[in-house]
Amino acid sequence: MNQSFYVDDLIRRALQEDIGMGDITASSTVPQEQTASGRFIAKSDLVVCGIEIVERVFWLLDDRISLVIGAADGTFVKAGTIVADISGPARSILSGERVALNFLQHLSGIATRTRSCVEAVRGTKARITDTRKTTPGLRALEKYAVRSGGGSNHRFNLSDGVLIKDNHIKAAGGITQAVRAARQTIPHTLKIEVEVENATMVEEALACGADIIMLDNMSLEDMAEAVRLIHGQALVEASGNMGEKDLLEVARTGVDLISIGALTHSITAADISLKFN
Amino acid sequence: MNQSFYVDDLIRRALQEDIGMGDITASSTVPQEQTASGRFIAKSDLVVCGIEIVERVFWLLDDRISLVIGAADGTFVKAGTIVADISGPARSILSGERVALNFLQHLSGIATRTRSCVEAVRGTKARITDTRKTTPGLRALEKYAVRSGGGSNHRFNLSDGVLIKDNHIKAAGGITQAVRAARQTIPHTLKIEVEVENATMVEEALACGADIIMLDNMSLEDMAEAVRLIHGQALVEASGNMGEKDLLEVARTGVDLISIGALTHSITAADISLKFN
Amino acid sequence: MNQSFYVDDLIRRALQEDIGMGDITASSTVPQEQTASGRFIAKSDLVVCGIEIVERVFWLLDDRISLVIGAADGTFVKAGTIVADISGPARSILSGERVALNFLQHLSGIATRTRSCVEAVRGTKARITDTRKTTPGLRALEKYAVRSGGGSNHRFNLSDGVLIKDNHIKAAGGITQAVRAARQTIPHTLKIEVEVENATMVEEALACGADIIMLDNMSLEDMAEAVRLIHGQALVEASGNMGEKDLLEVARTGVDLISIGALTHSITAADISLKFN
Amino acid sequence: MNQSFYVDDLIRRALQEDIGMGDITASSTVPQEQTASGRFIAKSDLVVCGIEIVERVFWLLDDRISLVIGAADGTFVKAGTIVADISGPARSILSGERVALNFLQHLSGIATRTRSCVEAVRGTKARITDTRKTTPGLRALEKYAVRSGGGSNHRFNLSDGVLIKDNHIKAAGGITQAVRAARQTIPHTLKIEVEVENATMVEEALACGADIIMLDNMSLEDMAEAVRLIHGQALVEASGNMGEKDLLEVARTGVDLISIGALTHSITAADISLKFN
Amino acid sequence: MNQSFYVDDLIRRALQEDIGMGDITASSTVPQEQTASGRFIAKSDLVVCGIEIVERVFWLLDDRISLVIGAADGTFVKAGTIVADISGPARSILSGERVALNFLQHLSGIATRTRSCVEAVRGTKARITDTRKTTPGLRALEKYAVRSGGGSNHRFNLSDGVLIKDNHIKAAGGITQAVRAARQTIPHTLKIEVEVENATMVEEALACGADIIMLDNMSLEDMAEAVRLIHGQALVEASGNMGEKDLLEVARTGVDLISIGALTHSITAADISLKFN
Amino acid sequence: MNQSFYVDDLIRRALQEDIGMGDITASSTVPQEQTASGRFIAKSDLVVCGIEIVERVFWLLDDRISLVIGAADGTFVKAGTIVADISGPARSILSGERVALNFLQHLSGIATRTRSCVEAVRGTKARITDTRKTTPGLRALEKYAVRSGGGSNHRFNLSDGVLIKDNHIKAAGGITQAVRAARQTIPHTLKIEVEVENATMVEEALACGADIIMLDNMSLEDMAEAVRLIHGQALVEASGNMGEKDLLEVARTGVDLISIGALTHSITAADISLKFN
Repeated sequence: MNQSFYVDDLIRRALQEDIGMGDITASSTVPQEQTASGRFIAKSDLVVCGIEIVERVFWLLDDRISLVIGAADGTFVKAGTIVADISGPARSILSGERVALNFLQHLSGIATRTRSCVEAVRGTKARITDTRKTTPGLRALEKYAVRSGGGSNHRFNLSDGVLIKDNHIKAAGGITQAVRAARQTIPHTLKIEVEVENATMVEEALACGADIIMLDNMSLEDMAEAVRLIHGQALVEASGNMGEKDLLEVARTGVDLISIGALTHSITAADISLKFN
Repeated sequence: MNQSFYVDDLIRRALQEDIGMGDITASSTVPQEQTASGRFIAKSDLVVCGIEIVERVFWLLDDRISLVIGAADGTFVKAGTIVADISGPARSILSGERVALNFLQHLSGIATRTRSCVEAVRGTKARITDTRKTTPGLRALEKYAVRSGGGSNHRFNLSDGVLIKDNHIKAAGGITQAVRAARQTIPHTLKIEVEVENATMVEEALACGADIIMLDNMSLEDMAEAVRLIHGQALVEASGNMGEKDLLEVARTGVDLISIGALTHSITAADISLKFN
Repeated sequence: MNQSFYVDDLIRRALQEDIGMGDITASSTVPQEQTASGRFIAKSDLVVCGIEIVERVFWLLDDRISLVIGAADGTFVKAGTIVADISGPARSILSGERVALNFLQHLSGIATRTRSCVEAVRGTKARITDTRKTTPGLRALEKYAVRSGGGSNHRFNLSDGVLIKDNHIKAAGGITQAVRAARQTIPHTLKIEVEVENATMVEEALACGADIIMLDNMSLEDMAEAVRLIHGQALVEASGNMGEKDLLEVARTGVDLISIGALTHSITAADISLKFN
Repeated sequence: MNQSFYVDDLIRRALQEDIGMGDITASSTVPQEQTASGRFIAKSDLVVCGIEIVERVFWLLDDRISLVIGAADGTFVKAGTIVADISGPARSILSGERVALNFLQHLSGIATRTRSCVEAVRGTKARITDTRKTTPGLRALEKYAVRSGGGSNHRFNLSDGVLIKDNHIKAAGGITQAVRAARQTIPHTLKIEVEVENATMVEEALACGADIIMLDNMSLEDMAEAVRLIHGQALVEASGNMGEKDLLEVARTGVDLISIGALTHSITAADISLKFN
Repeated sequence: MNQSFYVDDLIRRALQEDIGMGDITASSTVPQEQTASGRFIAKSDLVVCGIEIVERVFWLLDDRISLVIGAADGTFVKAGTIVADISGPARSILSGERVALNFLQHLSGIATRTRSCVEAVRGTKARITDTRKTTPGLRALEKYAVRSGGGSNHRFNLSDGVLIKDNHIKAAGGITQAVRAARQTIPHTLKIEVEVENATMVEEALACGADIIMLDNMSLEDMAEAVRLIHGQALVEASGNMGEKDLLEVARTGVDLISIGALTHSITAADISLKFN
Repeated sequence: MNQSFYVDDLIRRALQEDIGMGDITASSTVPQEQTASGRFIAKSDLVVCGIEIVERVFWLLDDRISLVIGAADGTFVKAGTIVADISGPARSILSGERVALNFLQHLSGIATRTRSCVEAVRGTKARITDTRKTTPGLRALEKYAVRSGGGSNHRFNLSDGVLIKDNHIKAAGGITQAVRAARQTIPHTLKIEVEVENATMVEEALACGADIIMLDNMSLEDMAEAVRLIHGQALVEASGNMGEKDLLEVARTGVDLISIGALTHSITAADISLKFN
């Protein structure tokens, strides 16, 4: 990850949120000097993501805890796999358990779903990409989880990518005007993407030099037609509410990218538990 | 909500995360003085939660934006309902749209699912309650969403409730020892909850005065038996991986509370969009 | 303590507050490489509290400083006792001395006073408990000091305990209505406390199932009468401006708890100094 | 005060500390739309300090609350005086009451004690001044309270004043060396103060041009003698553990300043309450 | 700017840094109720940048101060021009004056120098662009100042642009390998820039599809040759330590962009003062 | 420096600002396990300042990086000198390089210019001192750089020095009134400085006991005359827009201090680069 300040800050907030004025159960029932050991175990097939964060959670909470990682971030594991072994002061492990699992299950959930989408389009050239529909405050982590699952990232935020949508087009007076205006003020290191709804718009976007064209909620036929029109002059991104089962068909239209909001806005926590020995 | 510092801080972080060094699309394509108006529309049946946060997002971003709320937090609305009307500077509305929707869809998703669980046990005395399996950093908001959906809250964190689990019991040398140890050091304002797996444990927990007994992953029969044993001397909470369809059966065993981690750890964003007029 | 983020943050703020742009006296008069050693000595009988914080203050300031603790938090020591030995770079010890002592004397002052109150009621069942009348920003530390002195904690804040006072009763339309309303929305893990002024109120509080009854500023006779009425059906807390000398009499009325705001709102710094060898 | 960022930050922390996840008593028992009014009343003679902070506490919590100040910071009032009237939403007033009083009682306690010391030396030229023995995190407020009580401030922190004590002298190799070393590196806008224990040290300090001489724990006779020696060539500050009753005698030795740690390290909260109408 | 959180945070830090425990000169010499008015005047020809920040500085310090802007950010003004009129409480204006001017003079200095470079290449197609050689903590503001002076921005940070330099090339095993590796993992919205030193490298960069080619410290002849080779297949950026007088010659080689570190790393404060009426 | 919290915070902000969501170039082109080594080399004669900060930048980013300092802060080095050697993980060194250099070049630039001014007045008693015209947020560092270059510091902020200027004098009703008012409320540890424009003002300032007199924009003759008038009764500070070449003449008038805003408001980054081996 190598984004330690951001991640440490998230972890500290999560620990503060969960521990509050102190873990009164552990501190009253578990002797201070007692140690414990246990295992993080995958209870279904999944892609691990967040195990380095788990390590950091415990390190920040109590640096006497040691974690031995069994399955690194990005690894696909079968149910029953030991993801990590943990040992150290019992009180601290108990106090940090929930926060550690909350991170791990959330991120592994995203990575697992991403992998499933990536598998669905295997054999085509389409890349599965995320969106800005992320949980507030967790974007960098969630985009990391998408990469861990084999997906690729769309822009991180509003300042590192240009995506011209219907409202921008209307406001600027047309696709051409919008693309020109953007080109004049944005850093030269960024591409310009235009969201289109039909072939006419595709043509105008191509004509004014859009680098990426997003096909918004088009039918399979229209997508295929758009891909033909664009013919490699711009990257083509398919967008819209597609289920996993539609992905292959969309990919077969020849688009370069399929962006899926649900990768990060609708999450099923991966089933991982901490079992004490 | 009345927790403005916490919420404002979350919103600022989310806006910073999404806006980065500035919305380069809106600032280059939309004239500074242009205004716009639009509507937040529910695209499926759902419980609204987070619309006050949406209001605050836009207020913090640009106080010239005005929002008129059509459906308050906690309201169940049909697909097509206008949740709120918005108007103000076009650039600012576009820049804040995604963050606002990310909060609104996430929280409404939780509230909607909670409502569905609450409906499932209607007619029984069982209350649906959440857990600490929340998204790191968003706990207070997610617990608010559970309340908005008609559910009730379990403890907020490790310092405002005692929940004695198997590891605490083992460490303390038994249920009785653990309960006694806790009682001696915790604030007198807090109840003590013990997690049990069988009838013997139920009896010991009762004998030493546990205020709440959590039945962990028990069969329906065992739960019913436990409820009979406890006989009102303690609150009874059912816990474990239950699907929505099992809830009524669990409720009919006579438990007081059913806690469901999935309310907050597995989320389907509610389908709400912002349509410009 | 095990609340390192909170404590570290307090320490950093205190050091920043005291050191400002740098300790210009030490840095100009003490050679950089000079070392020093000294002792923290109790100059009167007292309960030590905060010595772990002293250790952390110096660790955060300069990790070459080492502290050997002679009397742990919660220990009652006689005047003349060495609480800790310190050694390391002279400049850093001098720069951190005042902040370290400010924490140590403040917290030991609270612990010492608490112990004196606890001693005053020895032999009765009454527990001495604190209130929310704490110094802004220092509550968790001050409540820790109360525990170090042998006292017990009341609720930490407004979200982890219910205390229904006259204004809440008036607003809700009566004790019964207020208790019922609270019960419906609060987490099931929390007890409900009601503040009463006379026997009629005691009876109503009992009737509607209050878990704790606070006797506010009652005479000894009225307290004794209330205890008889309540008869173990609820915990009884005595509250009001009592001097230390009244505590035993109050305790003998049979109350379970005596809460004392002065434990934390009126403080005499414990007399501890750092003597260089 | 005019230090709004610092004060607002303290207030936000105090409110967060006290409100936690929400005031569950007020929100469950008091109807949302209910309003209330009340008065902050002095219950003993005292110097008001912190009433502007009270105003800010409520403004930050809920800007619909209005406060009308009856006695400004720095005013000496008799028991029974109305310090301020408050009105607004009942829930918010109840939620903020404790934090507001904690600030007000703490600061008024300091101001009241300071005034009493200032009165004790009336008629002499001695000024009463504070020290760095303040509550961690609250120094600027506590020093403001000292000014409100008629006292004057010593240096704010280690970077805005030079105070050469025994350890600095030892390290530097003598008073003369220490003063010279300091003069060479500190800003020319700062005076140099030297702590002395006897007449010989006084003479050396004078000889090397110390601007202020602090007499540490000297007898009255020695102080008088030191004042004669110094003879206006430097400011003279008396320091040490003096009770209020000794102050006049110390002042009569002719010292310019008497510094008193207890002004801020040992505090009796002023008795002020909020009575609802 | 529309980046209020970032800017407000910078302003608060700057005010805290400059005001410390309070402006003791203004508060002791200027009566509290006194008002004042004055003008910010350009004392040499310059491009104004930061006047909105000045407005915000005073608003955050004391919202009774009003500022009337005479010359908006980005305006080139002659010596003697009134940039803004200010009026309000005298104490607050005096307390904020230095911070306001420090921002205004710093940013106007950058904008003015940028304009001078932009003027130097007028008539060519070359754009003047900045680098990441900015003052720590002030990047967004300094890049805004470059835009105010008519320049354009290079990437904001390491995550929103790819710039492959010699060390990356060496590590990856060649330009082609580096470009390929980058393309596979970066968001599809970003271009890839390669830094080259000679014609061979230019050819390899072109062959593997680099979007932008940076000519590092090349002679005018080599730059011209590179431009011919590239022939519009990639954007061309000239980089290196060039003085303002060389800019036109560089521009005439046909490069698209000239990046200049000195725009932000070497700054001459613009001469602007606040004159009281 | 010994101001670790402040400096660490600045470094974290600078790294966050520059790394954003991750260094996508290094992470895609440089193998994770690759190491590298290099040297920070002075490319012109300069005074090193900030090399300890460079060490801290890399330590905070990746504690496996080691830095061996060749030239400590405050050292004057010739072009070609190795300021430090660095070695460690290649990715992390590349990711931190720019931030490290931005600090180092900025601070060394200030120190180098300061040294040049100090050299200019060598042989006179005049000290070169800075002002509050510093870059927002970097004051403590920039004042440290001035000390590293052999200069001395003026007050750090508005609370640790009194400087009475024309507006304060006007507001107070005269120099005498202003000085008296200040003396009554400021800590006794601070001197009082008055800014004067002519001999009459000098005389009034002396008469009322000003400790320091600042000669504002006076001619050499007037300065010399003022020095004669003051005759050692107060420190004399010369101020105004002086070029380096005028410094010696100003110093020869006999002033004690010459304050120069340009030391910190107009900066030429020192030329230092990181060369990989």
